[in-house]
Amino acid sequence: MKLESLAKNLGLPWEGDPSVEIAGLAGLVDAGPSDLSFVASAYHQAAFAASGAGAFILPQDFDRAGCACLRSAAPYVDFARAVDLFFPRVGVPEPGVHPTAVIGEDVALGQDVSVGPYVVIGSGSHVGDRTVVHPHVTIYANVRIGADCEIHSGAHLREGVRLGDHVCIQNGAVIGAEGFGFAFRPDGSRVRVPHRCGVEIGDDVEIGSNTTIDAAHPGHKRYGHAETRTRIGDASKIDNLVQVGHGVEVGPGSTLCASVALAGGVRIGRSVYLGGDAVCRGEVQIGDGCFVGGGAGVNRDLPPGSQVLGRPAIDRRLWARVVAARKRLPDLLRRMRRVEKRLGIDEND
Amino acid sequence: MKLESLAKNLGLPWEGDPSVEIAGLAGLVDAGPSDLSFVASAYHQAAFAASGAGAFILPQDFDRAGCACLRSAAPYVDFARAVDLFFPRVGVPEPGVHPTAVIGEDVALGQDVSVGPYVVIGSGSHVGDRTVVHPHVTIYANVRIGADCEIHSGAHLREGVRLGDHVCIQNGAVIGAEGFGFAFRPDGSRVRVPHRCGVEIGDDVEIGSNTTIDAAHPGHKRYGHAETRTRIGDASKIDNLVQVGHGVEVGPGSTLCASVALAGGVRIGRSVYLGGDAVCRGEVQIGDGCFVGGGAGVNRDLPPGSQVLGRPAIDRRLWARVVAARKRLPDLLRRMRRVEKRLGIDEND
Amino acid sequence: MKLESLAKNLGLPWEGDPSVEIAGLAGLVDAGPSDLSFVASAYHQAAFAASGAGAFILPQDFDRAGCACLRSAAPYVDFARAVDLFFPRVGVPEPGVHPTAVIGEDVALGQDVSVGPYVVIGSGSHVGDRTVVHPHVTIYANVRIGADCEIHSGAHLREGVRLGDHVCIQNGAVIGAEGFGFAFRPDGSRVRVPHRCGVEIGDDVEIGSNTTIDAAHPGHKRYGHAETRTRIGDASKIDNLVQVGHGVEVGPGSTLCASVALAGGVRIGRSVYLGGDAVCRGEVQIGDGCFVGGGAGVNRDLPPGSQVLGRPAIDRRLWARVVAARKRLPDLLRRMRRVEKRLGIDEND
Repeated sequence: MKLESLAKNLGLPWEGDPSVEIAGLAGLVDAGPSDLSFVASAYHQAAFAASGAGAFILPQDFDRAGCACLRSAAPYVDFARAVDLFFPRVGVPEPGVHPTAVIGEDVALGQDVSVGPYVVIGSGSHVGDRTVVHPHVTIYANVRIGADCEIHSGAHLREGVRLGDHVCIQNGAVIGAEGFGFAFRPDGSRVRVPHRCGVEIGDDVEIGSNTTIDAAHPGHKRYGHAETRTRIGDASKIDNLVQVGHGVEVGPGSTLCASVALAGGVRIGRSVYLGGDAVCRGEVQIGDGCFVGGGAGVNRDLPPGSQVLGRPAIDRRLWARVVAARKRLPDLLRRMRRVEKRLGIDEND
Repeated sequence: MKLESLAKNLGLPWEGDPSVEIAGLAGLVDAGPSDLSFVASAYHQAAFAASGAGAFILPQDFDRAGCACLRSAAPYVDFARAVDLFFPRVGVPEPGVHPTAVIGEDVALGQDVSVGPYVVIGSGSHVGDRTVVHPHVTIYANVRIGADCEIHSGAHLREGVRLGDHVCIQNGAVIGAEGFGFAFRPDGSRVRVPHRCGVEIGDDVEIGSNTTIDAAHPGHKRYGHAETRTRIGDASKIDNLVQVGHGVEVGPGSTLCASVALAGGVRIGRSVYLGGDAVCRGEVQIGDGCFVGGGAGVNRDLPPGSQVLGRPAIDRRLWARVVAARKRLPDLLRRMRRVEKRLGIDEND
Repeated sequence: MKLESLAKNLGLPWEGDPSVEIAGLAGLVDAGPSDLSFVASAYHQAAFAASGAGAFILPQDFDRAGCACLRSAAPYVDFARAVDLFFPRVGVPEPGVHPTAVIGEDVALGQDVSVGPYVVIGSGSHVGDRTVVHPHVTIYANVRIGADCEIHSGAHLREGVRLGDHVCIQNGAVIGAEGFGFAFRPDGSRVRVPHRCGVEIGDDVEIGSNTTIDAAHPGHKRYGHAETRTRIGDASKIDNLVQVGHGVEVGPGSTLCASVALAGGVRIGRSVYLGGDAVCRGEVQIGDGCFVGGGAGVNRDLPPGSQVLGRPAIDRRLWARVVAARKRLPDLLRRMRRVEKRLGIDEND
């Protein structure tokens, strides 16, 4: 496709040679002369200069240095739209309910829903308009799913789970299973506290493959919420294999990367970032806008805007200095012995 | 419901005003005047004093300070029973075998079992009395499931797995898949050792969502067991996304929190606690009553009663001191340089 | 079975008493007089000497010390073959397509494939000869599966995934779900970049239970590959609960132990070993033959042959020295104060 056609398709203005032939898409580093690439921000100036791409999607004010380009207020967003053009989605399920679906009593299905083969929907559940439920999804009783959601195969929505609109759940995710809370009987045996308060997930949330989000029990009741739930706020994005314990609250716009584990009762503010494999001790509160680096272990409350790393997590800059110093620790011991010897001190005293 | 009615329902004695109206349940901190809360032990004295709950379930000897209360020998257990009253379970499957279930040859189903839609049960398997098998569970051949178990949707029980009675398996858990054990051929390629010795799970065990417990092979045979198995002892509780490798043995009454990973051949004693994201190197032995903190990495045997933290794991108190000192490491380097300068020592010597 | 019969069955020469009765198999430490065990290499000399096994599979040149044995060029491989004799596989699915399978349009099934109950195969997909697809597997559109593969129940293969020959996928694994890549709109909301480039898995690969391998998008294009994919090289072995992010490339013959997490764009060479719970930051490159120990956190490129441990990961030997010194850190602070006092230095200056 010529750049000019692409510009028309995407509704973006072009500059430079409009006849460049674009056959594919790529990042700046590996793009070739028939690839369209993009520059998200001035930060990528050097990679742009070194790139072999045939054309670029560039921010409005970015010097195109003679290259053919499309102009965009959000280059990565428009790159994503170009992906849709070059790699159109295949196998989109049609609206309709597959004859093998087992639908319980008092189930309400919205307009143009798609319910795939072998889907099981429990009694009293509701599926919103245009929502797509892929094969082998199990929806227990009294679940409410909003409009324009997509639930991929093998996901499980337990009793009373609620999803907002535009929620996407990847394969094998388990939402609303019973949390890990037990009471000890006097004889030392344990009984599970019934976790019947469910999970509530806001609009525009994405949940990754095989992620687990447990239901709450009434002991997780919080001031300011009429009902007790495990809660995931609007527009939060959760990656694969993430554990969200019972009674956790994640604020809107937050990001939980793969393999994050949140113990019960953790409260995460808005626009918080948790890097891959970060873990949080039970009941910890993490304020708005915090950055928790990959692999960090949060064992205390973090005020808004904190940036932490390490296990247990400490300030990000201090952690960088600790890590640098850590390598010198064996040598530091040697140096200490030398100093003590000079001073006639016995190290074992 | 008035406190008096609640007392009658739970079979507990009341003290204080029996006419307090209880509309819900909550933990001490967030409870309001129409909530019932509970005090598990004297440890929660301060939270009790500050609580706004309308009534409490209190230990027998706990000063109720004028509050309305129910008396209990196990307050958290009775709180759990109250949860059952206020949030009765919905959508409990009826006994019976759904017509879409695919049942193999020589399958024995006990009395009043419930087998949901699209369940597949392999030949020679056995399901005990009153056990509930939810939709989309796959049971391979020769599996034995005890009485009063509940297997949630999407769980997979592989060849030869055995469950005791009162076992609960949450959604998507995989029990008995082939372990990660390979033999190198002389040409450098690998062949998987057949893992045909299965998994044996005791009574009263709970297995969390998307947890994986691999089958053993004969190389995992242990003295004292007539048959080789991966084993989970009675009354152990396993959270979500836990990895239990081939040939692992977990003793009775142990607790594995979310995202724990046990490599092959690990042996865990009785009443051991492993916090979230703790990991154990292969073949390690952890004695009875050990506490392994969240995120710890156990790379050596631990005698009974050990309490460890850190990666690699060390004594819990020593770890606390190391963590406190760690922050001062960059400063320690600076101080060392100052001392060396004073003594005329070249740090690079 | 007498050792002589076993030798005949396995096609191996015997030495010592051929009439030893072999009733089972075991590792060296726990083997009894009716067990066959094996010695993989000279490294196990001491365990061999102490073993109570009735007979052994020994390397060609290993001193049998009077014991009954079979001789083998690959003792562990032949032990695995013996496992097959003593524990024959049960419940192997027969070729054929179960009547409940839902097969889309233009699906090509090879010779002697086995498609179990409730399998769903999307349009345009291809399943190679003799491949076994267990119950409840969901295969989306345009998937290509090679010959002699085995896909266990509850696995999900998303749009456009390609598997080579002899691939084994354990239960609940999710291959090709959409990666965790979002573009920010100017209003701060996020849109997922369409991940339509799929996953390509080579021959002889094994994927563990509930492992997730995400699809790539065009921004993951790499020099040297005509097509953009997340790629797993031939003969690589991946354990349970592993996260492989979008656009990752794993070279041939590599090993990813349980709970490993690879962020997006990571490139792993050939014959790399990643121990359990190791994590890699996005875009990191790990050279051929690297060893990344359990729990390590790789946050920078590693040249071929590196051996690292720790978070962040450093050279394995340096890490061992750091760990040893770490315990002495609290004491080091005390010693520093003593030295400063002797020199009349104020530590707070």
